[in-house]
Amino acid sequence: MKGHFAALDSAPFPLFEPGTVWLVGAGPGAPGLISVLGYYALGQADVIVYDALVNEALLALADPRAERLYAGKRGGKPSEKQADITLRLIELAEAGKRVLRLKGGDPFMFGRGAEEAMALAARGIAFRIVPGISSGLGGLAYAGIPVTHRDINHAVIFLTGHDETGGVPASVDWAAIANAAPVIVMFMAVKHLRSIAQRLLAAGRDPADRVAIVSNAALPDQMVLDVTLGSLDTLPEDIPTPAIVVLGPVSRYRDILDWYVGEARGNALG
Amino acid sequence: MKGHFAALDSAPFPLFEPGTVWLVGAGPGAPGLISVLGYYALGQADVIVYDALVNEALLALADPRAERLYAGKRGGKPSEKQADITLRLIELAEAGKRVLRLKGGDPFMFGRGAEEAMALAARGIAFRIVPGISSGLGGLAYAGIPVTHRDINHAVIFLTGHDETGGVPASVDWAAIANAAPVIVMFMAVKHLRSIAQRLLAAGRDPADRVAIVSNAALPDQMVLDVTLGSLDTLPEDIPTPAIVVLGPVSRYRDILDWYVGEARGNALG
Repeated sequence: MKGHFAALDSAPFPLFEPGTVWLVGAGPGAPGLISVLGYYALGQADVIVYDALVNEALLALADPRAERLYAGKRGGKPSEKQADITLRLIELAEAGKRVLRLKGGDPFMFGRGAEEAMALAARGIAFRIVPGISSGLGGLAYAGIPVTHRDINHAVIFLTGHDETGGVPASVDWAAIANAAPVIVMFMAVKHLRSIAQRLLAAGRDPADRVAIVSNAALPDQMVLDVTLGSLDTLPEDIPTPAIVVLGPVSRYRDILDWYVGEARGNALG
Repeated sequence: MKGHFAALDSAPFPLFEPGTVWLVGAGPGAPGLISVLGYYALGQADVIVYDALVNEALLALADPRAERLYAGKRGGKPSEKQADITLRLIELAEAGKRVLRLKGGDPFMFGRGAEEAMALAARGIAFRIVPGISSGLGGLAYAGIPVTHRDINHAVIFLTGHDETGGVPASVDWAAIANAAPVIVMFMAVKHLRSIAQRLLAAGRDPADRVAIVSNAALPDQMVLDVTLGSLDTLPEDIPTPAIVVLGPVSRYRDILDWYVGEARGNALG
């Protein structure tokens, strides 16, 4: 009898055509969190252009013949390197390759996937978006933190802690943010966390509000700091990144729902 | 040589132990969007308790011997039925079954997964969260809409359009919401959309703001309505649900990024 996964080797997946680009979200940390469709793409691609947030263990699951190209880029730098990456995707596609652009989390959640897709579309290169599990959702789930609970919030905000200049995003209305939802999930926010906390406190958020900082989410070396908004100015300097920060009372469920411990954590796939 | 998927049949996935519950996100629409870990669980479960948002085509990929139990529940009803579902999960686990609780999208994004997990924890039943791709992200990607683009927004709000009473969520500060982010993604919002639009307009949002309503996201019968915030009072009555509503200028990228058309749409897996 065919294995459960083996059955998918003959399943009618969409054709990954030469000369096209698939923008694929890898999900947070654990390689088992990529979608089935994304995993399929790993077996079809001629070349994989991956970013700094992609787990090496996931790349190991790709077809060994696929070329792997690192396109690491630290957030907050000017966009020149982004232009280089986009150009590389175009050149590879125009050379007739099946190009897999692999990004941590989801390509459309602070992932610049939209920019890359726009550049491909402008050039007439066919592409497909394969969404991923956002680290701001799935990464927090691995820390036992639900982003919503109907006793607490009917809205949740996702924001990025720095913009393309490297500073705290100037376009963000922190007073409105502070009051719009009990739960705020922050990406790439560790560097400016004190400054963000000051703005939220100035806008009326309670210093006793819980904050969880989840480093290396959904990986065996995941680390969670449980603090409060008012105590962020005494934060250690050496918080490991990448990290997802969540503000709001949903963190308290972690006291009960923290399932990613012991044996569960020993598993490399998820 | 082993197939690409067949290789996963001997991969070291975490053990799905009898007497435990895995809360798994199915992702939006297309069955290929479930995670590899979630697909693994479909092959291990003794019983699958699934909700109304789960695609039948995904259930067809489960082990044929697994019992399938429908736990459909329309949003907005009192919590009695939720209590029944939770009780059923507990009874099945206590009978020694491997219980897969399968939810559309992500279990922790307006999915009541937190409530179910809390009930299991209180009862001492071991559980695991397998996150999914939220429809508010992945469903919109299938309509060519990125929830973020750095030219437009450094923050995005996700909210639910009704609470447990069936009305517009009373806890939501619409004036703060209206000003906190250019992009607002709304779940289960079709019923109260006119009333929500009035509140957002009253709080200063531009009537010309674009709104996209994505019905049956990531499925071959996906349908997208492109309208404006000011025109929502003339909306047709018969908008198919489930639907994700997105307000904000990111919808304009859809004019260029709408990739889920023609052949791409013919594929049942994604």
